[in-house]
Amino acid sequence: MTEQVKIIEVGVRDGLQNEATPVPTEVKLELINRLAASGLKSIEATSFVSPKWVPQMADHKEVLEQLPKNSDISFPVLTPNMKGFENAVAAGAKEVAVFAAASESFSQKNINCSIDESIERFKPIFEKAQSLGIRVRGYVSCVLGCPYEGEIEVNKVAKVAQKLYESGSYEISLGDTVGVGTPGKTKSLIESIKNLIPINHLAVHFHDTYGQALANIYAALEMGVRSIDSSVAGLGGCPYAKGASGNVATEDVVYMLNGLGMNSGIDLNKLVAAGDYISNFLKRTNNSKVANALLAQNKN
Amino acid sequence: MTEQVKIIEVGVRDGLQNEATPVPTEVKLELINRLAASGLKSIEATSFVSPKWVPQMADHKEVLEQLPKNSDISFPVLTPNMKGFENAVAAGAKEVAVFAAASESFSQKNINCSIDESIERFKPIFEKAQSLGIRVRGYVSCVLGCPYEGEIEVNKVAKVAQKLYESGSYEISLGDTVGVGTPGKTKSLIESIKNLIPINHLAVHFHDTYGQALANIYAALEMGVRSIDSSVAGLGGCPYAKGASGNVATEDVVYMLNGLGMNSGIDLNKLVAAGDYISNFLKRTNNSKVANALLAQNKN
Repeated sequence: MTEQVKIIEVGVRDGLQNEATPVPTEVKLELINRLAASGLKSIEATSFVSPKWVPQMADHKEVLEQLPKNSDISFPVLTPNMKGFENAVAAGAKEVAVFAAASESFSQKNINCSIDESIERFKPIFEKAQSLGIRVRGYVSCVLGCPYEGEIEVNKVAKVAQKLYESGSYEISLGDTVGVGTPGKTKSLIESIKNLIPINHLAVHFHDTYGQALANIYAALEMGVRSIDSSVAGLGGCPYAKGASGNVATEDVVYMLNGLGMNSGIDLNKLVAAGDYISNFLKRTNNSKVANALLAQNKN
Repeated sequence: MTEQVKIIEVGVRDGLQNEATPVPTEVKLELINRLAASGLKSIEATSFVSPKWVPQMADHKEVLEQLPKNSDISFPVLTPNMKGFENAVAAGAKEVAVFAAASESFSQKNINCSIDESIERFKPIFEKAQSLGIRVRGYVSCVLGCPYEGEIEVNKVAKVAQKLYESGSYEISLGDTVGVGTPGKTKSLIESIKNLIPINHLAVHFHDTYGQALANIYAALEMGVRSIDSSVAGLGGCPYAKGASGNVATEDVVYMLNGLGMNSGIDLNKLVAAGDYISNFLKRTNNSKVANALLAQNKN
């Protein structure tokens, strides 16, 4: 396995949105700049949701307007609806992300509509995006389990993923939102879905709630997946169990890729420094084991 | 993969020996009893080293003498030399463990002799053990890297493992002492060694310093390994980098095995309770993500 792997850094959005400490715009931008300097080519920058629901993302316009210009880095932003999409585009977004759940209960409780309704709602966004030349990434949540329904049938996940793909997503990110997946189930899931969506249009998004994320990512790599979502310093907790771990740490993924001889184009030391910066700002334990090991070595 | 997997619980020895808080004999015994009640069939109980070097294991005789009697559980004890072996046997040990390093520098710095000398030194123990019907387990340390030498050639690891096996170890535990291994290298290592030692006589012992332990264990399972060393609550830090993680947590391994449909015979909830007990005693963060997730759920 001596191949390129793309890391989609989600710490600034998915991570910070689950952190209690408010983060000023300039700190977000400094983090983004440090992440960019580490070599990351896709950094999810913010979310165009209502500040009522996610106060941490209230400065989405300011963040987007001050992103590095003329760079070769993608800065996708989450857009839950047409209003968010239009605001994102007005602020300069070149790539957006939409999301649907593989679990009916999760869809109802999280976004207050059925899975089908949520996909229907995104159709005008896909159309508008296409006419404007804006790329759309599609997230599917609860692919290996749901906090309300438990295990989710693979064919339900496949159905949602296929719909989002056929609607015009250039990549489908399969999210283990509650981190309950294990490597065998990860392989079965990808085995089914790669018959419907080409493997080079699939990404994986693992949470480390049960410590399985890296083993699952390894299983996904073995299946041929080459796009991985992760969060620097493991930013973001688990909204379904306080005190539990959230996103897999980018540093730990990059360390594994390096060991596997796979190239992500990321400078691990610069990445660790970026994670250390935001962890210190948040006065929060760094959830990357690689970061803790390397930072501890430097102190010795 | 619907098979039996044996877990060798090393928390009471390898774990506690790296914990700074002194643990009274009765707490160790309570922990051992709780671990036994969870279904574990191999629990490393103590180490017959000099209390000068490892004060935490000074009560080895008392621990061994008060272990559950007439159970079907193995309680291996670490014996660094003939004196330790004789004391262990006198206290009732039925299984012992010896160790050698795959790295010459580590051997010199850790036990003050060459690899060959260390194996030579164990020969009388193997002979005595055989005559007494005592089982000997062999640890090889630094199999995927050394804190002094960096990467270790696979053939060096293979040579030491084979010598320990041919000397009479019923099982060879391959230890990633500094936790630097990644799944591809784990596979290459096992691929080489299983030509010399039957796979059902191999175990793996991963540290989670760089967060790779579970991915490496999954890789080892894919290669056919069915014996795994692990430490409840991830007891034990990393002596080579303060603040870094140590042993992989047994709870996280068992969760993965359950997900893979493999049977360890362990009740995960009882195991989590045992880890919670000792973590509370040590006033220490529980290093099992599974434990943190399940304990957080119970509090919600």
